[in-house]
Amino acid sequence: MANKVNVSVVYLAWSAFSTVVNLFFVRNLYVGGDWNLSWSKKAAAEAEAVAAISCSGHGRAYLDGLVLNGEEPICDCNSCYGGPDCSLFLPACPANADSGDPYFLEPFWMQHATSSALVVAGWHRMGYSYSDHSPNISPELESHIRTLHSVVGNAITTGRYIVFGAGSTQLLNAAVNALSSDNSSTPARIVALFPYYPVYKMQTEFFQSKNYTFEGDASLWENSTSNATMNFIEFVTSPNNPDGQLRKAVLHGHPNAKAIYDHAYYWPHFSPIPTPADEDVMIFTISKLTGHAGARFGWAIIKDEAVYERMTTYMGLNTIGVSRDSQSRALKLIKVVLEDRAREIFEFGYKIMRDRWEKLSKTLSTSKRFSLQKLAPQYCSFSQKVRAPSPAYAWLKCEREEDRDCYSALEAAGITGREGGKFGAELDRYVRLSLIRSQDDFDLLLHRLSKMPKSQGKEEGAKPL
Amino acid sequence: MANKVNVSVVYLAWSAFSTVVNLFFVRNLYVGGDWNLSWSKKAAAEAEAVAAISCSGHGRAYLDGLVLNGEEPICDCNSCYGGPDCSLFLPACPANADSGDPYFLEPFWMQHATSSALVVAGWHRMGYSYSDHSPNISPELESHIRTLHSVVGNAITTGRYIVFGAGSTQLLNAAVNALSSDNSSTPARIVALFPYYPVYKMQTEFFQSKNYTFEGDASLWENSTSNATMNFIEFVTSPNNPDGQLRKAVLHGHPNAKAIYDHAYYWPHFSPIPTPADEDVMIFTISKLTGHAGARFGWAIIKDEAVYERMTTYMGLNTIGVSRDSQSRALKLIKVVLEDRAREIFEFGYKIMRDRWEKLSKTLSTSKRFSLQKLAPQYCSFSQKVRAPSPAYAWLKCEREEDRDCYSALEAAGITGREGGKFGAELDRYVRLSLIRSQDDFDLLLHRLSKMPKSQGKEEGAKPL
Repeated sequence: MANKVNVSVVYLAWSAFSTVVNLFFVRNLYVGGDWNLSWSKKAAAEAEAVAAISCSGHGRAYLDGLVLNGEEPICDCNSCYGGPDCSLFLPACPANADSGDPYFLEPFWMQHATSSALVVAGWHRMGYSYSDHSPNISPELESHIRTLHSVVGNAITTGRYIVFGAGSTQLLNAAVNALSSDNSSTPARIVALFPYYPVYKMQTEFFQSKNYTFEGDASLWENSTSNATMNFIEFVTSPNNPDGQLRKAVLHGHPNAKAIYDHAYYWPHFSPIPTPADEDVMIFTISKLTGHAGARFGWAIIKDEAVYERMTTYMGLNTIGVSRDSQSRALKLIKVVLEDRAREIFEFGYKIMRDRWEKLSKTLSTSKRFSLQKLAPQYCSFSQKVRAPSPAYAWLKCEREEDRDCYSALEAAGITGREGGKFGAELDRYVRLSLIRSQDDFDLLLHRLSKMPKSQGKEEGAKPL
Repeated sequence: MANKVNVSVVYLAWSAFSTVVNLFFVRNLYVGGDWNLSWSKKAAAEAEAVAAISCSGHGRAYLDGLVLNGEEPICDCNSCYGGPDCSLFLPACPANADSGDPYFLEPFWMQHATSSALVVAGWHRMGYSYSDHSPNISPELESHIRTLHSVVGNAITTGRYIVFGAGSTQLLNAAVNALSSDNSSTPARIVALFPYYPVYKMQTEFFQSKNYTFEGDASLWENSTSNATMNFIEFVTSPNNPDGQLRKAVLHGHPNAKAIYDHAYYWPHFSPIPTPADEDVMIFTISKLTGHAGARFGWAIIKDEAVYERMTTYMGLNTIGVSRDSQSRALKLIKVVLEDRAREIFEFGYKIMRDRWEKLSKTLSTSKRFSLQKLAPQYCSFSQKVRAPSPAYAWLKCEREEDRDCYSALEAAGITGREGGKFGAELDRYVRLSLIRSQDDFDLLLHRLSKMPKSQGKEEGAKPL
């Protein structure tokens, strides 16, 4: 009898324990558990497995990354890091300060992994059209973009039209095309104030249109008396790429001049926002807002209906609008940005960019060899305070007589910048240094700059700060 | 004592049951269970919730669909269905046989929900480049496309270059641009054999290039003796849109004629594959392979390196390549296609298209009012048998004298096709009917056609088959 009692107690104890465990499992089933997940589980597990691949903090693996020998995708390493897990620093590798890949925002998105993840069903948006009246524009995304501009206060959208493009890149030529097709007897002259973003010239010249030609520096036409009969289209980049200055059109007030405002960098990461931009054609891109340059998504805010119609036609005939996958992605990312009325992402981004500019300025402050563009603190209506500069690029000038090819001078010191000459004629004394890349890129840039001789004249050997 | 024994039995039974249940839970935890999911769970649950929204089988809800009043996204209904859950048939609505949205493949993707789902992390592909040597092209995707063509046997890719575009649409003009920029004294003449895809003309004329002009019907230049000094670029669509005929270049053999082969429909859904296409420039699109027109993804297979370089430059300056989100999506979809060496999707697609053509042909077989294009069965090397026709479009001819505006004749009968006149001059007696839309669209088209009077001459009232 004693044994039977003991056995009962064991069964009782086990039953109780097991039941508690059952309840635990069942609770998780009904409260935030995953087992209501069905078709998306496998894809989610795959994505999480790839995200968990270790790249030593100097890279990341992508779901669609190169797969060697049937294994998992390889690490995509930051510049100057290598090896299977990016742990190998490559000391002879030049610091990458060339292109404007916005990796400085990558940590923000890794910190917001849950809210920024997007699951795309196999049957998602197979068709060509969102709706009959606006086939290529996601209405939810357009609505969120208008809200975004209202929250940030960096552009007027009320009463304006919006067109999407594959990055601002596509919209630049769409705008040129739209503004130059007025059956004028002579081609419109496309101008931009030096130094300007090289794509304006390269793109304009590449398409070999009958309706427009690239004419160079806008300032050359400012006071010209012969230009009364000419039609001008001026690219105005504000803040400017490469030097971060806020700008207005040089040919403002000219009777036959129209302006395309490229506001790619007009976000609180990079610029104070004194007032909402209020121009006839304003172009933005998600590349410099959230950092997703690969998504190829931008938008134009347009005042004139005829210009809007022509740009819409351009988009339709060039690419039948923008990828629906890019639009879904942009919507998800902008929703995250708007979660706290954009405070967090811009504080995150501004803090990094401001610190980088301070460090760079400090590193070069005693240098007679180099100088940076002058940027003054300015009041920002978004942050409601005076902001220190936080530009996306340094527009570095080589001051030494023998450094008239500034790009080569930096190359010799193990830094790859972007040649100033690409931004206009006779600018080889300048180099654009990208400050928006990864922390690895910026740290190495700063390190290499700090090792360069600082004083005027020919000097041998490195002189530390 | 009997009671104690009974109680023991109860505890034993419960323990056993409870333990088995726990083992079941634990098995699921370690074998395909979800609790190792973390950051992707929420997004996965959202996507599954939207997928579960009922649209009565006459539509579907999208994750980024329009949201009214803060509720879940609305149903995106098939043509002629309405109401919040698409259950309301709209009897006065014209049957949609206009655009080529490939919804006929949507059920395939719903059946393959697990394998075709894609989870995009917030930090996915933020940068501009895949690699230094080929910044805009996903190497995994390119590799899978080559495999796909090898498996299907519809194009030679060995020793060829591949360029991606936002749909074939972007690649058409990129190819024209690349083939016409040889510093010729006169613009290249762009031609295509009637009936042709209207975009060739619309796009070519829209860009107003100095280097090319649209000249119309290729057959007008076939035997012209004055064309020895002229440069021609011929669009060859094979199978053709709108009539599904396999084609070769009309100006083949002409010393100064180059051809751009548009093979959008050269897949076993729509066409026999007698032999792998082997032309200098061949363009494909995922729109007509998997049905994902919204992804805006296509590719060109190019023989000549200089042409490849120019097209790559075009892509770079037009849009900095194709959205990385579209490329990830395309890779996932093509992987699913290749799972069983493409058998399943093409059997699925071919069966539907062949059945639709049979039903349409039968419906119109006794009609003296309408005729369809003649398509003969042909041997297909992919399926290794002679295939019945399964074209994407019907190229319907109105045979009655008074139906010289065929589009309006059909419009009056509650069918919206695409006017034949858009496909070339003096083709108003024809209408293109899209057969690749949803089953709802095809059923309604067939129904409306079957209600139309069939005989020659003016007749009143409907005559059923």
